[in-house]
Amino acid sequence: MSQDWIHADCRLPSPEHRERARLRQDELTKPQGSLGRLETLAVELAALQGRDRPAAARVPVIVFAGDHGVVAQGVSAFPPEVTVQMLHNFANGGAAISVLARELGLPLHVVDAGTRATHAIAGVHIDKPCQGTRDFSRGAAMSEDELAHALAAGRRAVEAAGDADLFVFGEMGIGNTTAASALACVLADLPLDELVGAGTGLQGDRIAHKQQVIADALALHRPGIAGSAAPGREALRRVGGLEIAAMAGAMIAAAQRGVPVLVDGFIVSAAALAAVALQPRVRPWLLFSHQSAERGHARVLAALQAQPLLQLDLRLGEGSGAALALPLLRLACALHNGMATFAEAAVSERDDAP
Amino acid sequence: MSQDWIHADCRLPSPEHRERARLRQDELTKPQGSLGRLETLAVELAALQGRDRPAAARVPVIVFAGDHGVVAQGVSAFPPEVTVQMLHNFANGGAAISVLARELGLPLHVVDAGTRATHAIAGVHIDKPCQGTRDFSRGAAMSEDELAHALAAGRRAVEAAGDADLFVFGEMGIGNTTAASALACVLADLPLDELVGAGTGLQGDRIAHKQQVIADALALHRPGIAGSAAPGREALRRVGGLEIAAMAGAMIAAAQRGVPVLVDGFIVSAAALAAVALQPRVRPWLLFSHQSAERGHARVLAALQAQPLLQLDLRLGEGSGAALALPLLRLACALHNGMATFAEAAVSERDDAP
Repeated sequence: MSQDWIHADCRLPSPEHRERARLRQDELTKPQGSLGRLETLAVELAALQGRDRPAAARVPVIVFAGDHGVVAQGVSAFPPEVTVQMLHNFANGGAAISVLARELGLPLHVVDAGTRATHAIAGVHIDKPCQGTRDFSRGAAMSEDELAHALAAGRRAVEAAGDADLFVFGEMGIGNTTAASALACVLADLPLDELVGAGTGLQGDRIAHKQQVIADALALHRPGIAGSAAPGREALRRVGGLEIAAMAGAMIAAAQRGVPVLVDGFIVSAAALAAVALQPRVRPWLLFSHQSAERGHARVLAALQAQPLLQLDLRLGEGSGAALALPLLRLACALHNGMATFAEAAVSERDDAP
Repeated sequence: MSQDWIHADCRLPSPEHRERARLRQDELTKPQGSLGRLETLAVELAALQGRDRPAAARVPVIVFAGDHGVVAQGVSAFPPEVTVQMLHNFANGGAAISVLARELGLPLHVVDAGTRATHAIAGVHIDKPCQGTRDFSRGAAMSEDELAHALAAGRRAVEAAGDADLFVFGEMGIGNTTAASALACVLADLPLDELVGAGTGLQGDRIAHKQQVIADALALHRPGIAGSAAPGREALRRVGGLEIAAMAGAMIAAAQRGVPVLVDGFIVSAAALAAVALQPRVRPWLLFSHQSAERGHARVLAALQAQPLLQLDLRLGEGSGAALALPLLRLACALHNGMATFAEAAVSERDDAP
C-alpha cells in the first residue's frame, strides 16, 4: 500500500490573515488584550483558515475505535469487550461524545479502525485491517501493511466527513493508555514513570504492573525502533494502536487539506506526537483543548509545546474534552467577527493612546 | 429605606438531590469521575436547584454600570465618559457581552445603577440614587441612603428578570478595579500590593500611583470601618461602588430565591465578598467562572475558597468570563441528564467492581 500521501506537503497558515486579524482585535471595543486567549485563538484560526472571519461552525467529530492485544497483560480496569459495547453506545446516542455532539450540533462519525467486533454495527463505519493489535509485550503490535491501512483509514475518514472548519478526533479502545504511554515514551523521549497513569481507573499496584509491562515491552522494541530508517513510524507500528495510527493519519490529512484540528486528551495527543513525527508540518494545525487528569498528559503537551485551553480533570477520551472546549472557539470567532470597533461605537480610546 | 430584606434567610441546597445526582453520575457509561469538574458541577447544580435534572437554559445576564469619583485621582487608563459610551454599546449589540448573550441565547439586561449619564438611553434601565460615587480618597463614596438604594436596585433587577436557572451579573464602570481592590483589601484582609493591578491597562508608574491612592484612602477610612457595628456594609459604603453594591444586592436576592449565580471576574468577586459579608448564607449559591488576569483576582478567589472553571487571561468584565464558562455548565447538565447508564447501554462495568 502506497505511503506517498503522508509526505505530501501540508498547507501553511496565512501570515497576512494573522496580521489583519491582530489589527482588528485591537480596534474592538475592549481594552487591548483583555479577551486573553480568546483573542489569540481567533487570530490563529483566521491565519489557519485563511479567512478574515474565522469560523468553528462545521466541526465533524470522528471517533476511531481499536482493540489492544496488550490487555492480555492485565493493564486495564475494564474488560476488553467494553470497546465494542461502547461502539453500540456511541451509535445509540448514550455515550458522552454522543450527547456532546448532539448538544453542539456536530456530525458524529464512528469508525471501527480495528476492534474485535466480528459483525456490522448500525451507525459504525468499518475500516480495519484486523481485529485489534497483537500483544506488544510479545512482538510488534502491527505489520507494515496493517499500519499503512490504519493511517489511510484516518485519511479516508477525513475525506468522507465533507466540508469542515475544524476537526475533532476522538478514540475508544480498552488498553489504549498503555499504547499511548509506550508511544509517548519513545517519541518524546520522556521518562516512563511520568507517563503511566490510571487509565480508566487502575489503582496502586496495578499501575505499577502496567508500567512494568510497558518497560519490558520497550526493552524488547527499542533496538528495532532505533535501527529503523523511520523510527517514528516504527514506534507506531511496534507499540501503537490501530485507532491511534488512524488518528495520526487523520491529522496529517486534515493539515494537508488546511483544516485545523482541536486535539482532545492523552491518547489523541500521543497520536499527535506520531503525526508530527511522520510529517512535521502538521504541528501548526493542531490546537489543544484540555489538559487531562491522566498522568502523562502534561508531559506530552509540554513536549508538543502545547498550551491547552481547559484543565477540568477530565480523563474520558472519546473526543469529549475537545467537544467541551469547542464553545470557546465558537465564541472567540463570534467576538472577533461581531463586536463593534471603537470608531463604529463612538467609544473613546485610552487617555494615553499614542 | 428598609434594610430588612438583606437579613431574610437564603434557601439551602438540597442534600437529597446532591446524593441522588452523585449516584446517577456513577451509573453513567464512563469510568467514575472521568468527567472531572463537569460531574461535580452537575451534582452541585442539582443540589442548588433541588432538581434531579439540573439545567442552565434560562440564564439572564444583568450588567450593572456605575461611575466612580475616585477617577479624579488618575487611576484609570480610560477616560470616565467611557462608562456611558459603553452603555450605548451594550444596548446597540456591539460590546463583548452583547455578542456573547446573542450567541448563547441569553436575555441581556443593562442597568444604570449610578453612571454620570444625565439622559435616558434606549435599552438601559435606570435605577440609581445619584450620578456616580464621590471620590473615596476624600470621603465616603456613598451615603447610607445611596448604598441602600444600590443594594435594592440589585434585588429589583433580579425580580424583574423573571424565571431563571442561573444568573450572570456583569459590570461596567471606569475606575471600578480601584474600588474593588480597596474593598477586597478590607473585606478579605489581604495585602493591598497583591490586589492592585492594571485594570483596563495601566502600566508601571501609574499602577504604583493607583496603589498609593488606595492606601491613603484606606488610612482615611479604616477607623470608621473598624468602629462600625456592620463593618462589611460600612466598607462597601465608604470605598465601594454603586454597581458593586447593586451586584451584592443581586447576589443576596438570587440566593434568597434559590437561584445560583455564575460569578464573573475581579469586580464581581469583590461584590461577592461584600454579599457574603452582608449575608453569609449567600456563599453556597456562588459558582465561579474564571480566574482573571487582573492581579488581585487569584487572592480574592482564594479568600472565597472558590475554584474557578477557566483561566484564559481574561480581564474585560461585563460578565464576559461568566458567559464564556456557561457552555460548560450547560454541557455538564446535558451529560448528566442525557447519557446512558451501564445498565441501559449493556456496557460491562470494571473488572474489579465490588
